[in-house]
Amino acid sequence: MNSSSALVVEPEHCLEQYEVVRDQTMRLVEPLAPEDTVVQSMNDASPTKWHMAHTTWFFETFLLEQFDADYAPFHERFKYLFNSYYNAVGEMHPRPRRGMLTRPTLDEVVSYRRHVDARVIELLRSPPSAHRAEIVRIAEIGCHHEQQHQELLLTDLKHLFAQSSMHPTYRGPLPLPSGAPGEIVWVGVSEGIRRIGHPGDGFFFDNEVPSHRVFLQAFELADRLITNGEYLAFVEDGGYERPELWLDEGWATVRREGWRSPSYWLLEDGSRREFTLRGVRELEPHDPVCHVSYFEADAFARWAGARLPTEAEWESACQAGSSDGGFLEGDRLHPGPDAGTTGIRQAFGEVWQWTSSSYGAYPGYKPLDGALGEYNGKFMCGQYVLRGASCATSRTHARRTYRNFFYPAARWQFSGIRLARDAR
Amino acid sequence: MNSSSALVVEPEHCLEQYEVVRDQTMRLVEPLAPEDTVVQSMNDASPTKWHMAHTTWFFETFLLEQFDADYAPFHERFKYLFNSYYNAVGEMHPRPRRGMLTRPTLDEVVSYRRHVDARVIELLRSPPSAHRAEIVRIAEIGCHHEQQHQELLLTDLKHLFAQSSMHPTYRGPLPLPSGAPGEIVWVGVSEGIRRIGHPGDGFFFDNEVPSHRVFLQAFELADRLITNGEYLAFVEDGGYERPELWLDEGWATVRREGWRSPSYWLLEDGSRREFTLRGVRELEPHDPVCHVSYFEADAFARWAGARLPTEAEWESACQAGSSDGGFLEGDRLHPGPDAGTTGIRQAFGEVWQWTSSSYGAYPGYKPLDGALGEYNGKFMCGQYVLRGASCATSRTHARRTYRNFFYPAARWQFSGIRLARDAR
Amino acid sequence: MNSSSALVVEPEHCLEQYEVVRDQTMRLVEPLAPEDTVVQSMNDASPTKWHMAHTTWFFETFLLEQFDADYAPFHERFKYLFNSYYNAVGEMHPRPRRGMLTRPTLDEVVSYRRHVDARVIELLRSPPSAHRAEIVRIAEIGCHHEQQHQELLLTDLKHLFAQSSMHPTYRGPLPLPSGAPGEIVWVGVSEGIRRIGHPGDGFFFDNEVPSHRVFLQAFELADRLITNGEYLAFVEDGGYERPELWLDEGWATVRREGWRSPSYWLLEDGSRREFTLRGVRELEPHDPVCHVSYFEADAFARWAGARLPTEAEWESACQAGSSDGGFLEGDRLHPGPDAGTTGIRQAFGEVWQWTSSSYGAYPGYKPLDGALGEYNGKFMCGQYVLRGASCATSRTHARRTYRNFFYPAARWQFSGIRLARDAR
Amino acid sequence: MNSSSALVVEPEHCLEQYEVVRDQTMRLVEPLAPEDTVVQSMNDASPTKWHMAHTTWFFETFLLEQFDADYAPFHERFKYLFNSYYNAVGEMHPRPRRGMLTRPTLDEVVSYRRHVDARVIELLRSPPSAHRAEIVRIAEIGCHHEQQHQELLLTDLKHLFAQSSMHPTYRGPLPLPSGAPGEIVWVGVSEGIRRIGHPGDGFFFDNEVPSHRVFLQAFELADRLITNGEYLAFVEDGGYERPELWLDEGWATVRREGWRSPSYWLLEDGSRREFTLRGVRELEPHDPVCHVSYFEADAFARWAGARLPTEAEWESACQAGSSDGGFLEGDRLHPGPDAGTTGIRQAFGEVWQWTSSSYGAYPGYKPLDGALGEYNGKFMCGQYVLRGASCATSRTHARRTYRNFFYPAARWQFSGIRLARDAR
Repeated sequence: MNSSSALVVEPEHCLEQYEVVRDQTMRLVEPLAPEDTVVQSMNDASPTKWHMAHTTWFFETFLLEQFDADYAPFHERFKYLFNSYYNAVGEMHPRPRRGMLTRPTLDEVVSYRRHVDARVIELLRSPPSAHRAEIVRIAEIGCHHEQQHQELLLTDLKHLFAQSSMHPTYRGPLPLPSGAPGEIVWVGVSEGIRRIGHPGDGFFFDNEVPSHRVFLQAFELADRLITNGEYLAFVEDGGYERPELWLDEGWATVRREGWRSPSYWLLEDGSRREFTLRGVRELEPHDPVCHVSYFEADAFARWAGARLPTEAEWESACQAGSSDGGFLEGDRLHPGPDAGTTGIRQAFGEVWQWTSSSYGAYPGYKPLDGALGEYNGKFMCGQYVLRGASCATSRTHARRTYRNFFYPAARWQFSGIRLARDAR
Repeated sequence: MNSSSALVVEPEHCLEQYEVVRDQTMRLVEPLAPEDTVVQSMNDASPTKWHMAHTTWFFETFLLEQFDADYAPFHERFKYLFNSYYNAVGEMHPRPRRGMLTRPTLDEVVSYRRHVDARVIELLRSPPSAHRAEIVRIAEIGCHHEQQHQELLLTDLKHLFAQSSMHPTYRGPLPLPSGAPGEIVWVGVSEGIRRIGHPGDGFFFDNEVPSHRVFLQAFELADRLITNGEYLAFVEDGGYERPELWLDEGWATVRREGWRSPSYWLLEDGSRREFTLRGVRELEPHDPVCHVSYFEADAFARWAGARLPTEAEWESACQAGSSDGGFLEGDRLHPGPDAGTTGIRQAFGEVWQWTSSSYGAYPGYKPLDGALGEYNGKFMCGQYVLRGASCATSRTHARRTYRNFFYPAARWQFSGIRLARDAR
Repeated sequence: MNSSSALVVEPEHCLEQYEVVRDQTMRLVEPLAPEDTVVQSMNDASPTKWHMAHTTWFFETFLLEQFDADYAPFHERFKYLFNSYYNAVGEMHPRPRRGMLTRPTLDEVVSYRRHVDARVIELLRSPPSAHRAEIVRIAEIGCHHEQQHQELLLTDLKHLFAQSSMHPTYRGPLPLPSGAPGEIVWVGVSEGIRRIGHPGDGFFFDNEVPSHRVFLQAFELADRLITNGEYLAFVEDGGYERPELWLDEGWATVRREGWRSPSYWLLEDGSRREFTLRGVRELEPHDPVCHVSYFEADAFARWAGARLPTEAEWESACQAGSSDGGFLEGDRLHPGPDAGTTGIRQAFGEVWQWTSSSYGAYPGYKPLDGALGEYNGKFMCGQYVLRGASCATSRTHARRTYRNFFYPAARWQFSGIRLARDAR
Repeated sequence: MNSSSALVVEPEHCLEQYEVVRDQTMRLVEPLAPEDTVVQSMNDASPTKWHMAHTTWFFETFLLEQFDADYAPFHERFKYLFNSYYNAVGEMHPRPRRGMLTRPTLDEVVSYRRHVDARVIELLRSPPSAHRAEIVRIAEIGCHHEQQHQELLLTDLKHLFAQSSMHPTYRGPLPLPSGAPGEIVWVGVSEGIRRIGHPGDGFFFDNEVPSHRVFLQAFELADRLITNGEYLAFVEDGGYERPELWLDEGWATVRREGWRSPSYWLLEDGSRREFTLRGVRELEPHDPVCHVSYFEADAFARWAGARLPTEAEWESACQAGSSDGGFLEGDRLHPGPDAGTTGIRQAFGEVWQWTSSSYGAYPGYKPLDGALGEYNGKFMCGQYVLRGASCATSRTHARRTYRNFFYPAARWQFSGIRLARDAR
């Protein structure tokens, strides 16, 4: 099966989802000045304006141009400007130069969104019956695609604001967190054949299937995330000065980049502070540690006498993981402390959790047909899988089989640590 | 003499000058969207917003903080953000990261300008008599400093707009040029001792003095600038493929950068076009060639069997150079064709003219005292002198002894070519 | 079990092995001029002289300094110069500067080898009984370590010679190959739980254990290697110009490096030739394709409608793989054509075979104790596993469970392609 | 006049010169192992073997191929391998890859030299009368060219040896220096028109002519070189930490490179030592400071309240400079202390002296005809002139009008400091 949605979703549901998702993007942009939406702070990040336009381009290209016979492009250059990486769709504006595009302005991009929204809504209201299933399928991919970009919009913006010594705040200060997590409890899973991957009911990306069997040795998974306080103990134990704790490439990165702590930690006048989307504040010891790279997660685990889970372990153990995190809808824009007591907690909605699994194809993997086949498969090299979901992920976007992936040196996502260990 | 202005300028004249110059900057920004004012398109360029704030910082730092006892800084971080390169004034925001500053917004920068303007105007209206001369002197430097940044604001903006495939236009299209320059006439100057450098009446920068004697061999200077048409003949004669025409470092640059023509020339469907601040248009053969590097000017001269003038030659020969160019006030924002017939023409107000003189100190050179001593002297290495003035230079900023300077690979200024040759 | 050799090897056998391996290195150096042994042609490669000294340092550091109470270092600086990457042993000469070491000369390195050989032989002849097992264990690791460097010595030398337009030959021309491989036959393996990893009898590296169970889906493996002729069809079908065939990072590498064919292929006057350690010769269509990166192997497989095997698949299917390749002892120094007819052939002794498995830890993996713990574990990031053995591998060094690993862009090893596919 | 030698030199004198110069090169190589002659330690440096072959290629290309009708090239690839930068002669081996050439070996290069020597000697013994003058002219250029490369051979070798923590010594230790220089005495020169450049009798390079008049202001020149002791005072006064002392580009270089002292100074256990071609030794306070860049010379001068001389000043003042330095023939391979008392001393034979003059063309400059026209002219950009001669320069190579030139960050030459100042 190489489709990403097996069950037929009704157009009316799809239309509702479309409107919710598109509105969410506009709400995220509200606190920003036009100036904030233009700049690209590093090659891996994109300007807010670009995210807004690219997600719109996606619907224009894969939906309107295919299924709306009367549709004329909003602007002929946009096809080139807002293509991200779909070679099959044609040439594209080079990624590291997205920040050179002062035009179209924010206002013009908003007009572009409205123009496309009107036509998409019309199409979803009365889809030609011959393509109805395909239209719904692509609209749904487009919504999930836009949710991915909502998370990136926030993490890219956080990175940008962190570059400025003005330390702009995106939103007002966080409420004080509550909760004092207890000692980690190790949840055991016995050896055996497990089935992982998406079973095929509801929406999923092509990289989550086929569902398939794997053999797992017995292991144990930590019931909660690693906290700032625990990570600080690693830092203060010389974690960033001891090569024996690090992968060779991790150690080279630490030295080249001068890393001494997670990204966005500040050391001012001897006190530890943290830059967040809601301003600079004291480092909260009970919050989950965040903005660590794979290298740091791996080194911390080694220091702690444990290891990172594989993605199969994570998925098997989080079977019954309660979805009690904050998510994007919780509006904290920062992970919060564990307040639970039983079972595996904080699996979703606080921070993405690095696994030791290199991102690759599942047995029998088939990319989507056509240009959308470039969505996932071509990135299956050199990256590591993160599982769960973060405080910047939409609740409706998260699921147990979801495979997020980033390069091992990446730190600008809301990425944290959950430990595993071999069964004793 | 290490002062930059020997004659006492009256405060009232200075005040008028201040208001004219500050207004001019605001007029330049009028056609821009906030998004256009944020981005830094290369390390050598700065965002519009930064130019607006830095020129204001200059008056705040060197005038208000020194001579206005009650003055409180508009914003404490601005001292750090908008210092360009004055080490003596303290730490500064790194130059290549000026484009990361989405805040202060354009509106806030405008408020900053108004705030400082009000206080400076008050100070110039009733300067404390003890510091009156010094206040006038620094205000005058500040005005000329801002005029320099007005030119950079335009050339940096042109560079930024050229990066975008949207090809934004800064202003409406140019009127069609008129004029068909005749053959170059060589104006001879006999050998002998000449005096160059500023004589000391009126405003000048420290790098223009002391006025001093030099011995010049007999030489000849072209009466007009090289045109696009003449430069195109060089291009079509394989100018960019023949190493024997180039300086070693120039040839390496041509190959590394893939240069095939001046900057901003476009080749579309076989026809030559040119990107200007007033849109893309056909390449005009009679316009002065523009946006060439020192390397290209030098190679063209070699190809033409001539050479570039030294700055002493240029200054000696342009003694009576008529100032008939467009300048910034002419509002063409692009150099125009020669329409004259006698004497040396186009010396000022069309394009800066590369000389073969490395930028260095005049005999007996002394930098200004204090932080302003960093204005010129520390850049006297590796750069070449350009003489004249361009279509982006204020008429009141130009003078015969003015020494502009850029690295030999720089092309984003309005820089062109005037030839010289040894006397026959 | 975290030891690398479970069964007790007798010292006398170990001594014989030591002498054979050390002699082999000296034989490899025989055809070289001193000048050939100094230069480092890229960061990933090392000079011949460095390989000769580093392998000697290994015995000196881990054997003589530990177990020979009277041993005085041959030269005090060598500890620093010839440490490769063992942080636990102390500071080391930076890897990219190994080519700066013109001293010690080749003759001095040979003396160093002789000096250490004499003491090691003595130690192995009459090991102190208290440390007998440990001495034998480390001596054996040292021999396998030196065999790894023998292969690198040859591949690094090939890279160096390829940089010179003199095209030096290491040895005289190859005998003409014989054999015309038939069509690929797909050998099927049914689904089920398989055991992979070294069972623990005889020598193995720590990364090959623990032996453990995995669940494999049914699959098929090609019975022979991909040939130059088959790869040429990919090249001529535009393989290097079609982004849809490549991983995203692979495509970026192709464009950045300008790859148009495997490394060491030459296109001279329209005919395809190949640079080998035995001179430049016509491209032999029946030889296995060689010096391809992971990216190229992956793109070829996609073009061919197949995929690369996982390392577990490779190991399961090659259970009975005949070891009929040339190996280092065969002295061809280049892979030869398949001449067999049944079963899986060319598994060992021609080229290493890229697998789709990212190099990582087996479940329950434990690095060796002490400094030797840095041998393998810290490289488990970003690299891909190759299986089999090449024409530059010693026959006594190869085994079915061996895990070689390189970065996906590496091409200077004897690396080739064996295809797999899902069961039909 | 665009010839480099106006007077006719007799062939027999030329032959003698040829033999002396060619022998000198071979003597310089004597202390080296083959391994020392291969490696290129940075892009600006060349391997010893390359210098030996390139100087030979010069005679082969410009003399034998032109005037010896029977001459067949020693090896067809050498034309490509050993061309340095003469585009007119054809394609060439890329400069940064000269260290990849392990072949030809040192022995083969020696054979190449012998082969060419035999033919050149024969040609100089009985030159065809039609080309006699031209042959002598080119032979003489070739000898001076080889003398330039002798100096580079030594400075490149010193750089290479300094990269190795083995600290190889080229020759046995230096005799202890004697001499304790007195305070600097300033030698005054009055204002007026001076003539500089080579008058045309004897050998000179094309960049030394035409001789021409310049107008000089009154100035004073230091009678001796700056010593290590004086430079150390600058270092200890925070010279490398004070941006106000440096050119902008110099300060950027100091920070990027981490400079804290001249090149080859060592700080070991709190004591200052210096790496020389004759081993590491205590820093001698009376020796001339050496291996400083233009940036350091300029900053030192500013700190000392003086400035560097222009090249015209240097040449005018050193009119009667005694040539009493060590030169290459003195065999110290390191500059020695001033022991004189009157007049301008140490002008030649200790260290090259940075001037504040950017390297450019003299008025009326004409490059040589043909390929030799690339000798000097194309480097006239971005470099600074050094005057005098060093302890690695042949006595017969030095002259008052000689213009040496290097980039302002270069430190691997024997380059030092002589101060000037405006007349009081």
